This record gives sequence, structure tokens and C-alpha cells, in this order.
Amino acid sequence: MLTHFEFEPDSLTLAWNDGRVTRLDVLWLQDHDPAGRHGNGQRLISVLDLDWQAGIRAVERQGDGLMIHLNTGRQLNYPLATLARDCQMTPEDDRCQSGKTLWCGNDFQLPVVGWQDYLSKDDSRRQALAAVADNGLVLLRGVPCKPGQVLEVIETFGFVRETNYGRLFDVQTVVSPSNLAFSNLGLGPHTDNPYRDPVPGVQLLHCLVNEVEGGENLLVDGFQAAARLQTEHPDAFELLTRVRLPYRFSDEQADLRSRVPFIETDDGGWVIKVRYNNRSIAPFMLPFEEQRAFYRAYRLWAEMLSAPELAITVRLEAGDCLVFDNTRVMHARTAFTDGGRRHLQGAYSDLDGLYSTLYLSGVKPC
Amino acid sequence: MLTHFEFEPDSLTLAWNDGRVTRLDVLWLQDHDPAGRHGNGQRLISVLDLDWQAGIRAVERQGDGLMIHLNTGRQLNYPLATLARDCQMTPEDDRCQSGKTLWCGNDFQLPVVGWQDYLSKDDSRRQALAAVADNGLVLLRGVPCKPGQVLEVIETFGFVRETNYGRLFDVQTVVSPSNLAFSNLGLGPHTDNPYRDPVPGVQLLHCLVNEVEGGENLLVDGFQAAARLQTEHPDAFELLTRVRLPYRFSDEQADLRSRVPFIETDDGGWVIKVRYNNRSIAPFMLPFEEQRAFYRAYRLWAEMLSAPELAITVRLEAGDCLVFDNTRVMHARTAFTDGGRRHLQGAYSDLDGLYSTLYLSGVKPC
Repeated sequence: MLTHFEFEPDSLTLAWNDGRVTRLDVLWLQDHDPAGRHGNGQRLISVLDLDWQAGIRAVERQGDGLMIHLNTGRQLNYPLATLARDCQMTPEDDRCQSGKTLWCGNDFQLPVVGWQDYLSKDDSRRQALAAVADNGLVLLRGVPCKPGQVLEVIETFGFVRETNYGRLFDVQTVVSPSNLAFSNLGLGPHTDNPYRDPVPGVQLLHCLVNEVEGGENLLVDGFQAAARLQTEHPDAFELLTRVRLPYRFSDEQADLRSRVPFIETDDGGWVIKVRYNNRSIAPFMLPFEEQRAFYRAYRLWAEMLSAPELAITVRLEAGDCLVFDNTRVMHARTAFTDGGRRHLQGAYSDLDGLYSTLYLSGVKPC
Repeated sequence: MLTHFEFEPDSLTLAWNDGRVTRLDVLWLQDHDPAGRHGNGQRLISVLDLDWQAGIRAVERQGDGLMIHLNTGRQLNYPLATLARDCQMTPEDDRCQSGKTLWCGNDFQLPVVGWQDYLSKDDSRRQALAAVADNGLVLLRGVPCKPGQVLEVIETFGFVRETNYGRLFDVQTVVSPSNLAFSNLGLGPHTDNPYRDPVPGVQLLHCLVNEVEGGENLLVDGFQAAARLQTEHPDAFELLTRVRLPYRFSDEQADLRSRVPFIETDDGGWVIKVRYNNRSIAPFMLPFEEQRAFYRAYRLWAEMLSAPELAITVRLEAGDCLVFDNTRVMHARTAFTDGGRRHLQGAYSDLDGLYSTLYLSGVKPC
């Protein structure tokens, strides 16, 4: 609630009953004029329409609104609710670390939602999508073991990101794999496809068969790892937000290249995206003086991601479908025996679609 | 060609016949060991496998290679060609400004490729894709005026990015449009979908019918505009690379939100992505002291993008399909009469797929 206001020609100062005081430039007031938006919420004016000579001549309280008179004759009519909403300092940004619940292996319970509940109950679906937003992942259980089903899971919240691997890809042992994921080797903690720009934001792994020994999945909260690195080795953290490494994947069908940092931060210094994938880092070169410091930071990042206390272990059983934020959660797998069958189907999607579905379901992630 | 080398325990220094001198930390040498890569090019070792105690004991030239003996007993066997390639200072990055030919309206000829040539001649297809990489756009002419054809164009170089607008969207006048693009209003220079994260890197506009007066497209090289802004107003440029604005698109089917800067730069300070779309910037707030400086920079950016000398004008005729880099090229359109028919179909794809097709066709963009 607005308790007090005062103005000068160049600005309006508002005091709210929660103690907040907001000062708004007359340019901001022109730019945010509710009359400058179409009914669909889109802005009809551009920054070029602002009058840089305009000043505030008078401000009147009118019921639930403020009428601002400019010295150019123009009036801006602001409902107080609009003003209160629009002048919040922190715009929504549900991608960034600050809005997430970070976790460690030893005190984290993997969020699990049954597929039938997910399909039939709004609350269950919301809970599952909110878990991806907040914790970075959810395990859907009892998903039919039908090839292609993983695409139907995506269609419940977003769109399939088709790639050179297809709309979906099979993770099973093949001879002479173009990608080591399709062998029975263990894989260290990694995010998928750092060589792809834009990187897919959501990954799904749907288990159709798992009869092997080994082949467990380890999952690590990369935002937690980044937060710890920042606390324990701020200089290494800073270096990894700055230096971009080249990544590459190349076979007969595709030649994908990117150049991106391990850790991306926003203008508030919050982590918004992390990456790690030792397999696909292309040869890179730095000035000699920077090489050792960079390798130190790189090693500290890899060590943090491999810290046993950060990981949870999940053995995917037939019918399990893991949905996770590929810009945050690292996955790894242990090696497995060559004998039995293990067949996962994976697919990619994007976070914006998942968040959109979550927002429309009326619940903000915590 | 290697002309000279010398080493110390912690590093190897190489002198090449082009005058280049490269110094490599023993950690770099271990990390780039050719024996540490699988036949498919993927790295088998991780940074955790490097030996921080290892030093160089001896280096021998052996034919076309160098054999590096570490004091741990390990040997690294480098073909000289591999060394020469891997220790280049600048890794490939075809997204960034430095590799592009920037253009202005008055001295730029829109690259045009005929659809039949594109389909039947490797050179024509390469030329078209290289134009998108280098200039940010190409006009394909004579593309069949068949609804859905735009998706077939995408399938020649990449994958369709499906969104809430569908696999493709129709740009024609509708009553009560959820997006002003679907009205007959003029639209200022903009990139599409800044509220989507990741933003689609490639946009296509395929003209099926154009019988209206007006409705011309203006195209602007956003990398050129950013370069000029950097030269003329370096402080404004810097501010726009740093401050992130919230964007939002919301209707009954979707609620999409992002928080991104107008201009993104890489670790070398080169522009890699630009954005502008006055319609979808959500309400935003900055500390009062920063508001005026930000509005000034924002206005300068909008003015630069609207500078008539930067734009080229294209009237899309039936059968024309414009393919452009939506992280670089701004498009605008003039208003058009309500009477005649104008029907475009648009669709999105991603740059990595387009670049991959270009690389595989054996030609690097200039």
C-alpha cells in the first residue's frame, strides 16, 4: 500500500507500507505508462517515443490510482496496483540459482511422481514440474515401457528438441560408437551436448530395460557444486565464468561446435547455467601465463562435481523416466557388464516450455 | 613448420616458421595427449587424470613428431601437425562478430539463391548457408508457394524448433491478435522471441501471397549496429552488455519469460548475440541512479537500429523465403492496407544445425 509520495520534475518517489521507498525517473514513468500497452500485454510504444524534455508538473491521488501530469500536457494514469507490481526491484528470473533449493546427496530425497498421478492429477503434474524448476529434476515412475514413450512425456509439458541424434536416441551398447554414451563404459559427471548452442535445457532418460549389473546413474546438483566452488575458491569460480572453451562433436552426420564457459552467471552474479563434459572439450589454447591457473580452476570444478557427498545414486528400472535440467544437473553412470540388456531412450526439450506449463498451471516454483 | 624447440621441466616452447612462438604448460601437454582421445575424437581422460607432479625430462624430434618424456616415465607422442593445429591461439568460433562481414544498407546486396539451384547444386546450397553465416541472411527465390513448404526448407539444413506458435506460424491479419505481428500494423526493427530462452537462432519467412500495398520488410545488421554503438558510445555499449531486461509473452497457451541483455559479448569482447524487441520487454526496475543512464543507452541502441542508412528494404513476393540469423539480423515491416491478401509462413530453427550442414559441405564461412 502506498503511504506517501513526493515528486520533483525529474522523478517520483513512492513510500510503501512495507518500508520500501522507490524512486522513478520520469522516463521510466513514460515508458511504463499502462496506456502504452496493448490489451495482450505487448508494449505499443518504443523508447524512441519517450519525451526527454518532459518533467512532472503535478501528481494527484485519484482513488486507487495516481494521475501524473507532465509539463508537456500529457497525463499518465497509473493504477496503484500496477505501480506496486512494476517497480519491484528484482524481476522474476526462475532460471537463476537464487530461486532454487540447492541440494547435496546425503540430505536429498529424489522427487518421485507416479505417471498415472502425473497424467490425471493437476497437483501431481505441478509438483513434478516444480521439482524440475526448484531441484532440477524429477523421477516419473510407471511410465509405459514402450519405445517412443519418452516423446509423449515431453508433449505433456513442452516441445521435443530434435537433433542429429533424432527426436529421441537409444542409449544401449553398440559396436564402434560415435559417442561413448553408446558403450558400456562408465561416464563421469557431465551435462549433455555442451557442443550444441543453444544447449538443450531439459533432458529425459526413460528406462525400457535394465538387466545389467552396474549402470547406475549418479546425479549432482551443479548449482550446489558451483556455489561451493565460489565459497571455497572464489578466484577459480571467477575464472570459470570468464574463460570460454571450445566444444566439438563430429561424426558423418554432424559437426557441432560451441565456445562457452563452464559456469554462466547473470548481472547479479548468480549462477544461471553450468556445464561439464570432459569428453567433448576440443583442443584449446590459452596464453602460457594463464594455463596453470586455468587448469587449477578446471580441476577444482571437476573435483567438486565428483565429490561423493554431492551425488545421489539412482538405479533406473524399467518404467522410470528421469526428467532433469541439463543446464544444472550433472549425470554420470557407472560401467556395466556386457552381458545383460540395458536400454534407455533419451530425448531433449527446452526449459522455457516446461516453465510456461508450470506458470499456466498457476504455481510458481518455490 | 616447427623450426626450434626448447623445454624446461614445467613447459615446452615451440617456434614455428611463421614466427609464432608457443609455450605449453606440461599440464596442457598431458591434457592434449593424442593418445587420450578415442578414435571418434572424444576425450577419454579427464582433468582429474593429469599428474601435477610430472615434469618434462627430455624432448626428442622423431620424424614428423615430438616425443616428450616425462619424469614419471610416461611418454607423450605428438605428431607435429596435431601440435601445430591444437596450439592455435584462437579457437574457431563462427558465431562471433570477428568472423563476419558486417554490412550497411547502402552498400549491401542481399544474397539471393534460386530454390532449384539450392536443391540441385552443392555450390548453391553452400553459398546460401555461407551467406547466413557470414552476412546473417539469404533470400531463397522460387520456393513453391505451398503451405508447410517452409518446414521443408528447414529440413535441408537443420531441425524445426517447434514452439507454442506451432511448427510453423501464419503471419496474416487476424482479429484481436495475441501478438501484434498478426495485425497489419507496422513493426519496428526487432528480433523475434526474446522472451524465449533459448531464443531461436534461425528464422524463416516464406511468402505465399503478397497483394497488399506496404508490408515491406526492412532488414538491419545488428552486429553492425552494435559495432557502431561501441565506437560512438562505448559506455552505452558496455551498459547494454551488462544489464539484463525481463521479457515476457503471455496468452492462454503460453507464458514465456526470459531475462537477457540487449547485446551479448564473449570473453574476447566480441559481440555474439543481439536482441531488440520493444513490444515484449516486461516492466523492469533499476536503482534510480542507473535509470537515466540506462534509458540513454537503450535509446541510442534503438536509434542505431532505426538509422535509415543501415537498413535494406525487401518486398517479399510469392515464392520468396528469407532465412536469417535471429541473433543478429533485425527485421521490421511497414504497415499495410487492410484490403489485399498478405500471407507469410514463418518457422524457427537453430544455428548449430545450419553451421553443421555448412561444415559438412566442406566450406568454412568466410
